[in-house]
Formats: sequence, C-alpha cells, structure tokens
Amino acid sequence: MFNKILIANRGEIALRVIRTCKEMGINTVAVYSKADEDSLHVKFADEAVCIGPPPSNESYLKIPRILAAAEITNAEAIHPGYGFLSEKAEFSRICAEHDIKFIGPSADSIARMGNKTMAKETMIDSGVPVVPGSDGVVESYEEAREICDDIGYPVIVKAASGGGGRGMRIVHEAENLQKSYSMCKTEAESAFDDPDVYIEKFVEDPHHVEIQVLGDQHGNVIHLGERDCSLQRRHQKILEEAPSPLMTPELREEMGQAAIDASKAVDYEGAGTVEFLVDKDLNFYFMEMNTRIQVEHPVTEEVTNYDLVAEQIKAAAGHELEKKELKMRGHAIECRINAEDPEHNFRPSAGMIDVFHTPGGHSVRVDTHAYAGYRIPPHYDSMIAKLIVSAPTREDAIKRMKRSLEEFIVEGIKTTIPYHIQLMDDENFKKGTFNTKYLEEFTFNPEK
Amino acid sequence: MFNKILIANRGEIALRVIRTCKEMGINTVAVYSKADEDSLHVKFADEAVCIGPPPSNESYLKIPRILAAAEITNAEAIHPGYGFLSEKAEFSRICAEHDIKFIGPSADSIARMGNKTMAKETMIDSGVPVVPGSDGVVESYEEAREICDDIGYPVIVKAASGGGGRGMRIVHEAENLQKSYSMCKTEAESAFDDPDVYIEKFVEDPHHVEIQVLGDQHGNVIHLGERDCSLQRRHQKILEEAPSPLMTPELREEMGQAAIDASKAVDYEGAGTVEFLVDKDLNFYFMEMNTRIQVEHPVTEEVTNYDLVAEQIKAAAGHELEKKELKMRGHAIECRINAEDPEHNFRPSAGMIDVFHTPGGHSVRVDTHAYAGYRIPPHYDSMIAKLIVSAPTREDAIKRMKRSLEEFIVEGIKTTIPYHIQLMDDENFKKGTFNTKYLEEFTFNPEK
Repeated sequence: MFNKILIANRGEIALRVIRTCKEMGINTVAVYSKADEDSLHVKFADEAVCIGPPPSNESYLKIPRILAAAEITNAEAIHPGYGFLSEKAEFSRICAEHDIKFIGPSADSIARMGNKTMAKETMIDSGVPVVPGSDGVVESYEEAREICDDIGYPVIVKAASGGGGRGMRIVHEAENLQKSYSMCKTEAESAFDDPDVYIEKFVEDPHHVEIQVLGDQHGNVIHLGERDCSLQRRHQKILEEAPSPLMTPELREEMGQAAIDASKAVDYEGAGTVEFLVDKDLNFYFMEMNTRIQVEHPVTEEVTNYDLVAEQIKAAAGHELEKKELKMRGHAIECRINAEDPEHNFRPSAGMIDVFHTPGGHSVRVDTHAYAGYRIPPHYDSMIAKLIVSAPTREDAIKRMKRSLEEFIVEGIKTTIPYHIQLMDDENFKKGTFNTKYLEEFTFNPEK
Repeated sequence: MFNKILIANRGEIALRVIRTCKEMGINTVAVYSKADEDSLHVKFADEAVCIGPPPSNESYLKIPRILAAAEITNAEAIHPGYGFLSEKAEFSRICAEHDIKFIGPSADSIARMGNKTMAKETMIDSGVPVVPGSDGVVESYEEAREICDDIGYPVIVKAASGGGGRGMRIVHEAENLQKSYSMCKTEAESAFDDPDVYIEKFVEDPHHVEIQVLGDQHGNVIHLGERDCSLQRRHQKILEEAPSPLMTPELREEMGQAAIDASKAVDYEGAGTVEFLVDKDLNFYFMEMNTRIQVEHPVTEEVTNYDLVAEQIKAAAGHELEKKELKMRGHAIECRINAEDPEHNFRPSAGMIDVFHTPGGHSVRVDTHAYAGYRIPPHYDSMIAKLIVSAPTREDAIKRMKRSLEEFIVEGIKTTIPYHIQLMDDENFKKGTFNTKYLEEFTFNPEK
C-alpha cells in the first residue's frame, strides 16, 4: 500500500480523498491555488503545497507544478479527483513516466474512452448497445430512407459539424424524412459551412442511468449497480439517486454486464462510470464512459456500503478485487448544493458564508469543504456541498431529504437549497416520472 | 397517525424526535426551560412552549405544565425522550387519563420493570436468566454456604441496604466465605444500621450487552440485535457499538429470544432495551430493562436501517409490527462527546461554543443540538453531541471514528474528543478485550 498520496484537486472531493486516506493510514499531500489557502483540504492534509494562482490553468491544470509537488513531498501516487486533470490521458501517461502511480486508468484506457467515435466503435465491437444510426455521413436521401426504415422512427438528423443542440432535426414519421433531410443539409451548409449530416435513432424521454464499475490490474471488473442522474439543468446533473426508479433486477443485470463488457474492452482499472440512455421501453444505449470518480459516487456508497475512493486506491496499489455478491440496501439521493441564486436564473453567488449549519441525524451525509467564515472564491465551480440521504424506500428518502434540506442553514450567500426543497414536493419527481429534459419544464417558485 | 406530537425533552434527543416527525409529516411542539430559549429543538419545532425556569424540577419534570402545553397546542401524543419523565410510570398514567397518548409503554409495564425486585421475579417466572443468588436475605452462614455451593464461586455478598458500590465483598473461595459473610454483616450494621445481607453470583469481567426490542399493541415483540456498552466511566456509558465484539449468531438468537420473553412478560409496547451482563464464558444474565429510547439507539439504526423513533411513534399509533428477517449490515460505533475536560478529571466545561465544525463523509452521523454561538447551560447533562460512524467491519469503523473525531472541531469549551481519540488507539479496545471496569484502568494522557 502507498505511504503517501498527493491529491491533485480542491474542494469537497479533495477532502473526500483525504478522509479515506486517513482511514487507510496513508499520508496526504494537498495542492492548492492562492485562492484556496483557507480551504479545508489544505487544513486537513498532512502536507500542503501551493502550486500557483487562480485561474485553474495556472495551478490545478499545471502538470509540471503538480509533479514537482509530488516529487518534493515524496508522494508515491496522485489522486486526480474529478474535473481538472482527471480525464487527461496525457496526465496519466506523464505520471507513469515519472514513476508516480496515477490513481485511475491507464493513458490508453482514458484515450480510448475520451474519443467518442473510437469509444462507440469499441462498444459495437464488444456487443454493448449504442444508439443505432448511420455509419458516419449519410450520402443521399435514399440511403437515409433505408437507414431509417431499418432503425425505426423517430430519428434525429444531425449536422456532422454541429453541436450543443444546434443543427439537428427530429423526424417522427417517414413522410417527413425527405424534407427534414434536405433542410438539415441546407442549414448545416449555411451554419457550419459543411453540409454533411448523419442520422441516429431519437431516444424519447430517456432516463440518464449510469453503472458504477470497478476494475483491478488483474483483469477483473465488477459493477455496483446504477445511479439515475436524469435531473439536469443545462446538462449539469443536480440530483442523483440509487437505485433508478425505473430499474428492474433483470435490467440491472443486463446493464451491469454491458458496463463490465465496456470496461473490459479498454482494460479498465479503478473506478469508472458507464453512462447509458434508457428509453421508456427500457432499451438502453451506451453514451460514454467517465474514467474517474463521479461527483455523485456517494449514492452508490450509501446503498452498497463500498468506499469507492478506497477501492480506487486499492486497485492502484495492485490489489485484486474481492468478488462478492452485490447487495444493495435501501435508496439514496444526493442533492448538489450550489452557491447560485435560484430566484435569479441561478446566477453564481460568491462571497463569505456567515452561518453554515449542516443537517444531521439518521442516514444523513454531508460532503462539503465549506464552513462558517469561508469565502467562496469566484474562480471555481459553484458547488459548495453535497447532501446525501438514504432510507429503506425511495419515498422515505425523499421525506428525509426534504427535512434535511430544511435543516441546512447557509447565510451570507444564496444557494440552491430552496430549489431542491420544491423539487422534493414535485409530484412527477415523487412518482419517478421524469426524464433528462424534465427540469426544463420544472419552474422554481420563490413565493413558496 | 398523529397530527401533532409534543416532545417533553430537550437537547439532541428532542431534535432527534423532531427530525423523524418531520419525515413522517407530523407537526411538533417543543417545550423548553428559560435556559434553553436558544436551543435548536425550539428553533426546529413547529411550535414551542416555555414551561418554566431551570432546574429541571421547575420545568422538564413538571408534569402539569407539560400537560398544559399539550392541551393548549392540541398535541395528541407526548414523546418523553430519555431521562426526565421518560421512565416515570405516573407520567404515562396521567397522560392516559388526559387522553394524550404517551409514546412508550403503559404505566404498568414501566412500574413492573422499574421495581428491580419485581422485575427480577418476573424474569425468573419467564425463564429469562438472572444472576443466581439467594432468595432475598441470607439468615445464617450455613444458608450462605449452601447457596454458594449451589451457584459456585466467586460470589458477592451485598448489604441489603447498601448501594453504589458500598457494603459488598467478593468471595473467590469457599474457605473465605465465613469470614467475609460475618464482616459484611458487621459492616452493614455499622454503615447502614441494617445487618441484612444477600448473596449473588459474581459475574467476572462482564460485558454490558443490551438487546433492542420493539413491541406493538397487538402482542408482537421483535428484537433488533444487541449493543455493547461495556465502556463506562462512573457507570456512565461513553462509547457504544453494534454488534458486540463477543457476539455469535447463536448467542444473539438466544439473548434476543430472552429479551422478547422479558418484554412479553410485561406486555411491552414501543422501543425498549433489555440489559444483560455477559461473562467470559458467554453466559448472560438479565440486569434491567430500560423502558424508553436509549442515548445509544443510533448504532442499532445504522446497522439495521430501522428508524427507532419512527417505530416508537408507529407502535403508539396502534400500527402492527412488520415481521421481517433481521438483517444487520457492518459495524457501528457511537462516541458521546461531552463538554468535560479530560485533562482535569472530566470536570464540566460550560460556556460558549465559538467554533463548531462537525465531521462529514461516508457513513458518518452527527446527532447534536449544539452549534457555533451556542452557550451550554450549566443546568443539564454535559453531552453536546453523539458521533456515530459505521463501516463494513469493526476495524474499519474504528479507523473511521478516529478520523471523524480528528475532524471534529469545537472551540471555546473543553470536550472529551481527545479522550475518545486515544481510546481509538488503545490495543485492548481494538481487540475488543475489555469489560465494564476497563475504563477504570485506561488513563488519558494529555501529552499524546
């Protein structure tokens, strides 16, 4: 086992990793930017090294400074957390070249999953379901017609050079295909100077369901069930839960196996997440793999009783995975508490936290780097805490989350706590009838 | 189900009950003394009624004022918490007379367990093992000799009017009985003006192991496994855990059944605890039954995933117990954090809490009524927080507790946190080789 680990991150995830290291008897090195001098991860680590000023590309993204910090302090391994350098294949490679163990997959695994086209091809080769569609650019209407007859409607016609929701048309019936195909090409040419389009099956009202996997250096991969992360604002997850309200034991088995196959296809090591879309008929399609720990990993920890960061570290140290039956207990929900003002379109609310009283009691977990007297630096993301609750049933977990949110007192800044409280009262959320677009319809009412 | 419950208590347990009521959609009424105006239980309850000044016999023990508060606010039930009126049979009786549901057993159940002689007789009649001994006062040395030959050595000769450790002698061999018997009688006469003595088997190096039970109004009783509470200072529990390090599945089954038999013998309703001494050969003996929720109930909640306060309320509302297989997961430990100075013989340390930063992360629970800016009133007990952790194994739970204690920052007053940290490093504690006298030997070293 390692004697000392450097954590190349900040905020709650840096603290999260330090906690597990302490429990494992491993010394820790924090790195920090000048804006984070008063951060708890600096206070609770055994050693701390300043690696430059904000913004991140002057410090948390500066590979040479992080490696220098590791070498000065004799850290044997680096935990990258999430974000920042965690999914940079180059960082994994450079660590390996410096004989510092990167706690995560190899550069090759990261690269093969990081390139979306390559990842999709790898999945097809491994028999993992992907969203069916054209094999690249569609050359003619006749070809489009043939593909659509094959995959079935609705389909989505997408500009090859488009992105971020631009340059796409949904086609619900065969009779509209020709017109949509032509218009999409014309629009693509004028908008992106490239008329190429491709076609995919349009997945209606999907849930975002992701499978947590663990791989070791001996070729073993297991899965720890799913998380449902359908509740997103502007493609940012804001609430996650385990299990998914739509899951069945059979589907979990099937999706779990697909996630294992996906991971094995890239010789995966450590903790990873295979993200799927699941449609209303419970068909599932590979989206992408996140080759790192996720923000929402605690919901899996609460239902499975695994410590995922400990599993990452053990895998990095060469331990073999214990094979045991997956036992899930109860239901867990995580709300991301952001320093944002839900009354004013979620604009960031930086500044000093005057009062910070966290909720407590049975099966309530708070992961946070904030405290009373903490000034939120403006340079980083707005998440200040994760509130995680668990209970025997989903219904009980929602009630526990609501009372915990109501008990969470933050003064001095605005937070998304009131937004989450209203979400706990929402009938569709309570019933589990939502999809990845649901929060576009859900409106926050500040009067409530 | 009740619409409104009054909580006849203060501190963390009042808050604990409010939390569950909120999760169950039940309105809450707090009562408070003038010394507790700034307490969190007052803040988080839906209504709050001041019931007088400190000390407790002017407020929290004043039955007419509490009943008046319940009647004014139309509370349908009263939760007594622990301490104060929780084990006063009279309070249960008066509540019943006023058509207010006492959340706990009937006055008769409380009385039958509260009288130690009656409780012991009831246990003998129900086949629950009690510490063997004389049937009341021993009239002569010859009778003493006969009893001791029967129950075996060591025995303890106790003054009938003694108590609190005074007026007792342990006898390890038959040849010393006559002398000890005579001396004990002489001492009893001079100390208590009553020469009567009785004899009990002396249980060597016992563990204090207690079984959590739940009973409903339909005659059903189940048990939820045990807690080990052997670590005590001056007969006060300071650390509790579940399961007990000495437990075996067979012994749990046997003790669980004994606890169920004990509870059924007094028609028990609600949550209760049957306390046993367990000797090194795993013989167990009934000590007493606590007819209320215990301070240490969270360790059972964490391993069983039951909400014991919810179970109390459901039982009081007449719900029938769900019969399901007892599933315990992992290991939980609770440390009681007291406002006491371990460097100065645990003298109370009242005053203002300036900084109060609670630990967080995976499977860490904090039950507390304290916060930054809270002034601890000098009138009540010194416990300011309960820190509860769980983990897959006892070893992991100890490590998690240690890191959580190290993360717990309280400034402005002295606490027992440093004492608990040293206990986590103690080899005998780690091995589970301790008994109810162990903390008399364990010395706190402030230099560490």
